Amino acid sequence: MQDRIRNAALRDRIVSAAEAAALIQDGMVVGMSGFTRAGEAMAVPLALAERARSHPLKITLMTGASLGHDLDKILAETQVTARRLPFQSDPALRRAINAGEVMFIDQHLSETVEQLRTRQLPAPDIAVIEATAITAEGGIIPTTSVGNSASFAILAKKVIVEINSAHPLSFEGMHDIFIPTYRPNRMPIPVVTPDSRIGLPYIPIPPEKIAAIVMTYKSDSAASIASPDEDTVAIANHLIDFLSHEVKMGRMDNRLVPLQAGIGSIANAVLHGLIESPFHDLRMYSEVLQDSTFDLIDAGKLTFASGSSITLSAAHSRRIMQDFDRYKPHLMLRPQEISNHPEVVRRLGLIAINTALEFDIYGNVNSTHVMGTQMMNGIGGSGDFARNALLSVFVTKSVAKGGAISSVVPMVSHVDHTEHDVDILVTETGLADLRGLAPRERARIIIRNCAHPDWQSSLQDYYDRACAFGGHTPHILEEAFSWHIRLRKTGRM
Amino acid sequence: MQDRIRNAALRDRIVSAAEAAALIQDGMVVGMSGFTRAGEAMAVPLALAERARSHPLKITLMTGASLGHDLDKILAETQVTARRLPFQSDPALRRAINAGEVMFIDQHLSETVEQLRTRQLPAPDIAVIEATAITAEGGIIPTTSVGNSASFAILAKKVIVEINSAHPLSFEGMHDIFIPTYRPNRMPIPVVTPDSRIGLPYIPIPPEKIAAIVMTYKSDSAASIASPDEDTVAIANHLIDFLSHEVKMGRMDNRLVPLQAGIGSIANAVLHGLIESPFHDLRMYSEVLQDSTFDLIDAGKLTFASGSSITLSAAHSRRIMQDFDRYKPHLMLRPQEISNHPEVVRRLGLIAINTALEFDIYGNVNSTHVMGTQMMNGIGGSGDFARNALLSVFVTKSVAKGGAISSVVPMVSHVDHTEHDVDILVTETGLADLRGLAPRERARIIIRNCAHPDWQSSLQDYYDRACAFGGHTPHILEEAFSWHIRLRKTGRM
Ligand SMILES: CC(C)(COP(=O)(O)OP(=O)(O)OC[C@H]1O[C@@H](n2cnc3c(N)ncnc32)[C@H](O)[C@@H]1OP(=O)(O)O)[C@@H](O)C(=O)NCCC(=O)NCCS
Ligand SMILES: CC(C)(COP(=O)(O)OP(=O)(O)OC[C@H]1O[C@@H](n2cnc3c(N)ncnc32)[C@H](O)[C@@H]1OP(=O)(O)O)[C@@H](O)C(=O)NCCC(=O)NCCS
Repeated sequence: MQDRIRNAALRDRIVSAAEAAALIQDGMVVGMSGFTRAGEAMAVPLALAERARSHPLKITLMTGASLGHDLDKILAETQVTARRLPFQSDPALRRAINAGEVMFIDQHLSETVEQLRTRQLPAPDIAVIEATAITAEGGIIPTTSVGNSASFAILAKKVIVEINSAHPLSFEGMHDIFIPTYRPNRMPIPVVTPDSRIGLPYIPIPPEKIAAIVMTYKSDSAASIASPDEDTVAIANHLIDFLSHEVKMGRMDNRLVPLQAGIGSIANAVLHGLIESPFHDLRMYSEVLQDSTFDLIDAGKLTFASGSSITLSAAHSRRIMQDFDRYKPHLMLRPQEISNHPEVVRRLGLIAINTALEFDIYGNVNSTHVMGTQMMNGIGGSGDFARNALLSVFVTKSVAKGGAISSVVPMVSHVDHTEHDVDILVTETGLADLRGLAPRERARIIIRNCAHPDWQSSLQDYYDRACAFGGHTPHILEEAFSWHIRLRKTGRM
Repeated sequence: MQDRIRNAALRDRIVSAAEAAALIQDGMVVGMSGFTRAGEAMAVPLALAERARSHPLKITLMTGASLGHDLDKILAETQVTARRLPFQSDPALRRAINAGEVMFIDQHLSETVEQLRTRQLPAPDIAVIEATAITAEGGIIPTTSVGNSASFAILAKKVIVEINSAHPLSFEGMHDIFIPTYRPNRMPIPVVTPDSRIGLPYIPIPPEKIAAIVMTYKSDSAASIASPDEDTVAIANHLIDFLSHEVKMGRMDNRLVPLQAGIGSIANAVLHGLIESPFHDLRMYSEVLQDSTFDLIDAGKLTFASGSSITLSAAHSRRIMQDFDRYKPHLMLRPQEISNHPEVVRRLGLIAINTALEFDIYGNVNSTHVMGTQMMNGIGGSGDFARNALLSVFVTKSVAKGGAISSVVPMVSHVDHTEHDVDILVTETGLADLRGLAPRERARIIIRNCAHPDWQSSLQDYYDRACAFGGHTPHILEEAFSWHIRLRKTGRM
């Protein structure tokens, strides 16, 4: 207890989760910790949901990104979540969003706190933050994610802290909490390498803002990453061949440039592929650190990884937490505003690897909307990285749903990333290097290299007929979505 | 002459335009000065086009942005331009691009030089730069634009300088040439206010790289900005009312935050509207400085304007150039990489005002492709600004082509700016404040406030029926482009 709450005066504020949850009232804006299912407060939201079963209430829920422990499901099913931002990945909440029951504000992950500070979004009434410990000065030491926790705690009127003693005290020192000076007097953000330390190891707030403390003991939800399969290995190999070529052309050296990799199985497989690659002394400046980050550290390939969260499978989590001191010098967790900041991403010159649901023959990418309408998760940080990276890569398998869907389509049914922000596309069939190419040139290479053989000739046929209509970006508007419509009608594109 | 070429040794390199143009050979990559029809070298490209009439040749032509003096037309018609980047605005070149005869690489204006430095685009063989003068050290003092001239001159093997003595020598000191350190060792870009001076007043290159000097005397092409009409005045008034409300809400003070305004009649009208507004001590951090910038300075409303070019009407140009010393303390021209840099745009917290061709009921914006296929000009700097601004505003009239076209459509036929990057939409009918709203909420307010009465009920009907299909962003894929198709078939949406 002394270790976990070092400010003695604060120990009086320990209450039950239900008592803390009672501070949250109908109509409030609540900012919670949690990013890619890591580091979320759990006891208070569960108590809130419990209360809502008998005494309904609705809140605006802001987080870093997705929550673990089915919290988004439980809060959606108890109809607590009326508005949600800036990201989610839960099937039940997704259903409610797509039914128009929950208003979801899908945002670039670096932007939420800017809009809060300038009061373009309403400030949180309450922040609920999971912590490893509270320092003597009342500073909050986060756990496995930082996300938006620091700004929520700073901007909220009251803060509820969940001290989770399942997390080792040695987490202290892993976080780097930096809040940019407020505009219009902002100074440069001084991150110049992935390991630049620019802030404090805790979230600084006046201790009197801490309205309640809840003691918990829980592990993060385990990530369920599919292990590499034939296709994801092929994607990884295409990309590694390409990067080797970049090194040969003198565009970067064998240490590459810092890497960002999105969440999910393909990105994980690509990073895994680097273990056997000729590259060394790699660095990551990313959002989420997955199993592969730690495997690369173990393999002696990765010297440093900066992120906003750590999301691990059960097996990796067990192994790494036991031996955390060994990994700690190689790690830093930052607020998502900093991990994803356009200023820093552009400065460091990243290779950004993110996953597409579908892309079109001109290189526009849809990361979010199935059939142009149904929200999957959200744009997340992909736009922060893709727009500002040195090399913006999107990966996907060439088909989905057992081959019924081509991931390469005539026109994407929703655009998250325009052709301007997409340099390289990779599927298991091949890689398209789009740099310096006009749309008509992009189309030929995307169809040839990235489309599944089942759909290649239909795509080529669409493109050829579209060219007869003319234009910088030839299309046949009557047919642009005919593949999607056919899928809905026949179950196959 | 002494004044214009202060390095005596360089005076030997004065040649005719035809002799200088002879340095440019078939297949070369040529980087030319010029941005929004300001500051382009003219004599050498004209001589090149003349030669091409008898001795055909093809080049890749890179510039800052659009060229004046019909150069893009002449170079397209003589088939000199095989590839063109990163922006253009000429009807003849546009025709060739849309016919697939010229490969056009449409880029964010801040990005071209990054791709050149990392050799992701081929370096220019030759740079052709218009200058006011050459300093004793061989530094090149630009004229009415900086654009990409500095990086072209630094990266090219040879440089041709056109000294244009129609420009006053007092231009010296107006430019601020800063080249970021190359990645991976880049330091922050130290611009912290619109008037931060961080570089040199000239482009520093070793004098031996100057292969030829051509003496010219010419004025910039005059901008033909339509004067404010009833609709553009209404757009300006809606926006000014909104900004007054922002001030009242305490989100900014009466000096607002630095302004960026795109080129064109509407943006110009909006800035004009500020002359009679309650705001004062305004600052601009923009790309192009138009007539309205100078009118605001004259009115004592604008204290400082940073841009990458000055593009004036004939009348304004005459008046301002005569009295240039009066305006000079209020002006700075920067490389477009810096005027548009995501790092600086985000840091300064701009109000970015750009023009849309069309937008959809969810707030996605098309700035470039008529009917989703025909390139108009290019994305220009709109993405650099809209993604990173504190407040991203898009303006357009609610109808085009005399009322045959609704600028508000069910789904844009091409996406340049996704809903994530669009805060405020304005037409003459009203303003939609989209901040913090989910797509279904955005649709209702966009249809109500921004659509022309002729199309409002059809848009509402589309939206209502789309909601029956469901989804976070409801659409009927069968009908999403039916308005565009109807326009093609019947001449009216
Ligand atoms: C795009 C994204 C959904 C892919 O997720 P993933 O887990 O890597 O990839 P999967 O192949 O498992 O696809 C996820 C689901 O989409 C489905 N899917 C994939 N492509 C599809 C397509 N073209 N059409 C319809 N459904 C498709 C899959 O079948 C799967 O469905 P299931 O969950 O019912 O099995 C995910 O990367 C994402 O949300 N991206 C946006 C946010 C982001 O990029 N953040 C980056 C920084 S972390
Ligand atoms: C969008 C853009 C073309 C508007 O230009 P503008 O000169 O302000 O606006 P106009 O209303 O005169 O429109 C230009 C043309 O597009 C046509 N147009 C406008 N809306 C249209 C629509 N929805 N469908 C078809 N045509 C349309 C107009 O009729 C006009 O045609 P014309 O030249 O044959 O008369 C211009 O702002 C642009 O190129 N933007 C992209 C680059 C950018 O934003 N840069 C910002 C930093 S400078």
